[in-house]
Amino acid sequence: MKKFVNDPAQFVPEFMKGIAQANPDLLDYTPEFQMITRKGGPNNSKVSIVQGSGSGHEPAHVMAVGPGMLTGACQGAVFAAPPVDACYETIKACASDAGVLVLVNNYQGDRMAWDMATEMATAEDINVKQFWINDDVAVEDSLYTVGRRGVAGNFFVIKACGAAADQGKSLDEVYAIAEKVNNNVRTMGVALTSCIPPAKGTPIFELGDDEIEVGVGIHGEPGRRREKIHSADKITEELFEAVSKDIPFNSGDRIALMINGLGGTPITELYVMYAKAHDLAEQAGFTVVRNYVGEYCTSLEMAGASLTILRLDAELEALLDAPAETAARIF
Amino acid sequence: MKKFVNDPAQFVPEFMKGIAQANPDLLDYTPEFQMITRKGGPNNSKVSIVQGSGSGHEPAHVMAVGPGMLTGACQGAVFAAPPVDACYETIKACASDAGVLVLVNNYQGDRMAWDMATEMATAEDINVKQFWINDDVAVEDSLYTVGRRGVAGNFFVIKACGAAADQGKSLDEVYAIAEKVNNNVRTMGVALTSCIPPAKGTPIFELGDDEIEVGVGIHGEPGRRREKIHSADKITEELFEAVSKDIPFNSGDRIALMINGLGGTPITELYVMYAKAHDLAEQAGFTVVRNYVGEYCTSLEMAGASLTILRLDAELEALLDAPAETAARIF
Repeated sequence: MKKFVNDPAQFVPEFMKGIAQANPDLLDYTPEFQMITRKGGPNNSKVSIVQGSGSGHEPAHVMAVGPGMLTGACQGAVFAAPPVDACYETIKACASDAGVLVLVNNYQGDRMAWDMATEMATAEDINVKQFWINDDVAVEDSLYTVGRRGVAGNFFVIKACGAAADQGKSLDEVYAIAEKVNNNVRTMGVALTSCIPPAKGTPIFELGDDEIEVGVGIHGEPGRRREKIHSADKITEELFEAVSKDIPFNSGDRIALMINGLGGTPITELYVMYAKAHDLAEQAGFTVVRNYVGEYCTSLEMAGASLTILRLDAELEALLDAPAETAARIF
Repeated sequence: MKKFVNDPAQFVPEFMKGIAQANPDLLDYTPEFQMITRKGGPNNSKVSIVQGSGSGHEPAHVMAVGPGMLTGACQGAVFAAPPVDACYETIKACASDAGVLVLVNNYQGDRMAWDMATEMATAEDINVKQFWINDDVAVEDSLYTVGRRGVAGNFFVIKACGAAADQGKSLDEVYAIAEKVNNNVRTMGVALTSCIPPAKGTPIFELGDDEIEVGVGIHGEPGRRREKIHSADKITEELFEAVSKDIPFNSGDRIALMINGLGGTPITELYVMYAKAHDLAEQAGFTVVRNYVGEYCTSLEMAGASLTILRLDAELEALLDAPAETAARIF
């Protein structure tokens, strides 16, 4: 295993410390709960947006905290749900009179932790609602999931809900935005390689030198099938077909198109895929009005990518365009 | 070779097409010269900033074009200098009454191409100056370089010069800014793996399963030495020591600190390094007033990172804070 790590058991607290040190103007870090919250805490007159899951998917979730995005997030170990007390403390740290919306990517471990934390917070009269994200079209049930998995579409739910909350919408209204985004967003991914969690020290799955996993999960869960590698265009076509036929999206739709890198794939290869996906979208009669090419939801250093389509309307377009700032900023 | 590529010979034009399709509001793309320019072209009353080298280092250079950054850039094949005619056409496309500053990372191939292009442009009465960037402390002369190599410190030269040009500074004044940044910025990198240029199909160098290349160049050139891998902290100490002792930086200095990923290293590992580098900077008596953690100058999918320190003054701090926008934006 060749990685920039010290003691693998300290990998998560060490990188969270680095994120906090690099963003003192934006974030507060509470090491005890592996929790990062927006500087200055919640605004009592606005809905707070909260999330948390295993580490290894950065910038999701702790690097998605900031104005116009999440109010707070906590992380478990790599690919392990956060403990219940961390979830509970994150809700409490973000509690606001306007309420708290917890966005949970659909994995059984995360749901169990957030269910208990939500119950505990509700017992203390915190006004909290939960919403589950499940945008991955690859498989129905999965290794760690009843129903579909939540993957890169998560970014759009956070972005839209974060903007709506900042604009002063009510908890029910922000919940309705989450529902609208989730109903209109679909994703599928493909892996070229596995990744190596520091504490495990070996790959989480084996893939032949000429093989790819189509429909891979962000924890290396099996997808639809294993294939011999083929051209970027053919892989992109396969992802586009699966995603666009799922809702289905229709000719005339205004869409946001995302090519998300899984961690080990350079930005240039993502743009090769974007070029093909953009052409396919135009051929299908979609209008690409917003696009996102880069890393939004990763699996450590896995080489691979996912393709996401979000159907837009005027409300969602305005929410995507609202100002936002996170630790993922580049300037 | 497992990559998202089609015909390897089309890799560069295909990813450049993707960058252009994703940024129609920001960029114009001229396929004939693998050139990307700022939408709307140069502003005649302001200095234009131009760059170009081999591909494979993205976001440098074509993803660094935009308001407050480069006016235009061209790229050659992966790790190959752009042809003279592309450099010449890029200067011409960015020609302005206020003049053109060409920022060249110090590699012999790039210098030859830009020297000839500068001569051709000067013969046509374009007011053009050249500045060479050489921030890499690892080695003096190198495989493709007489003198030191230009690496991630390039970002700071572009950012400061782009801001100064946008503020209406003269060509001589912007040149002086380039000189000031280059005199005060130092970098060293380390590779955990090689990378595979698509047209070559095999790694550009061999590294054992437990080895790292300390002081690696961004084209895989040898560094100072090959070592057995050790902890992230020890590697970061080694980079920090080499970089901070070079000018040297002094206790009391206000600095910008960058951990730059080489393409295949996940953001979390970069933050593990940042945490250590930040602590070392404080122990050395530096004040870290700006920081940059992410990918600024890469080597395809190479796993590795570089550490850069820039000594700041009030002028440079203001230039780093000036607004800028490029294709590397995330929202």
